Amino acid sequence: MAEKRLLEPATYLFPAPCVVVSCADGGETNLITLAWAGTLCSEPPQVGIGVRRNRHSHGLLTRGGDYVVNIPAEDQARAVDFCGVRSGREVDKWDATGLTPVPAEKVASPLIAEFPVNLECAVRRTLELGSHDLFIGEIVAVQIDESILGPEGKIDDKRFKPLVYSFGGRYRGLGNPAGAAGFSVRGQ
Amino acid sequence: MAEKRLLEPATYLFPAPCVVVSCADGGETNLITLAWAGTLCSEPPQVGIGVRRNRHSHGLLTRGGDYVVNIPAEDQARAVDFCGVRSGREVDKWDATGLTPVPAEKVASPLIAEFPVNLECAVRRTLELGSHDLFIGEIVAVQIDESILGPEGKIDDKRFKPLVYSFGGRYRGLGNPAGAAGFSVRGQ
Repeated sequence: MAEKRLLEPATYLFPAPCVVVSCADGGETNLITLAWAGTLCSEPPQVGIGVRRNRHSHGLLTRGGDYVVNIPAEDQARAVDFCGVRSGREVDKWDATGLTPVPAEKVASPLIAEFPVNLECAVRRTLELGSHDLFIGEIVAVQIDESILGPEGKIDDKRFKPLVYSFGGRYRGLGNPAGAAGFSVRGQ
Repeated sequence: MAEKRLLEPATYLFPAPCVVVSCADGGETNLITLAWAGTLCSEPPQVGIGVRRNRHSHGLLTRGGDYVVNIPAEDQARAVDFCGVRSGREVDKWDATGLTPVPAEKVASPLIAEFPVNLECAVRRTLELGSHDLFIGEIVAVQIDESILGPEGKIDDKRFKPLVYSFGGRYRGLGNPAGAAGFSVRGQ
């Protein structure tokens, strides 16, 4: 059995989803790439995003009370990365990336037209955890590109080609299939 | 630009990390595969796991107060899947999968020896969100297989080959590199 090395506590939970969150307060909007984003609950569907308090988007999220989780495809990694390293205080990220804001269906924050999946979220709770505040959002509407839906109206990841955030700060696409939910007990 | 289809609110935030959580209460231990798991905060490092109240592990987590997030490699998908579809009330998942419990360094829950990354977590807060309760755990120790560490002592995802949980209930490995953090502004 492999030897284990004991390391200091740090954030090692990867691969993580790779998302760009759009938010708004009045007429001002911003985009922020977050590595700390995930589903927390199925019914009602809720996600959590962890945002540092010194980020420009933190104020918009706090005042605006909603956000959109936009999920990119593999070939959109450059815009994703840019929205993570630049600040909305200094640059208009919509202009800089060429991404297009589109009014959402149920929330005030705009969605990113070019990203294939958009989850419209209303903030239900905010938790102070330390370096990051957790904005728990209920998913109140979902918009999905027709082009990534399979014949049954479900997302087909071969058409989508989503991006993930892996160990060591690497963006990667998805690779080989390794089974589907329930495969270990099928036929038993 | 692609047409968007408006869908009912549901859990669409994928790819998600694919983890098996080990937990314990006194002498009893269990394994549970969770799709709702993610980092919430960097300092102190905290993760959240969403667990349905009717799951056997829910009681162990509530009473035990700690857990280990075990991150599998691609070739361990069968054990991952099994621990998600079977209940610890009916089967000893350690026996059934052949996985080996090993005492953790800082928590009472055992870690999975065969999984390359183990995050030892102490429950700091529990939130009732609906179908799932969120167990927020502070990472208090990290154990990593020597074999997946690169020359600088950092995790190399090419050696690790981690698993992700994609849309449509598909397990997948990782694919092509699509850049590294900061690549969009390098050389500017």
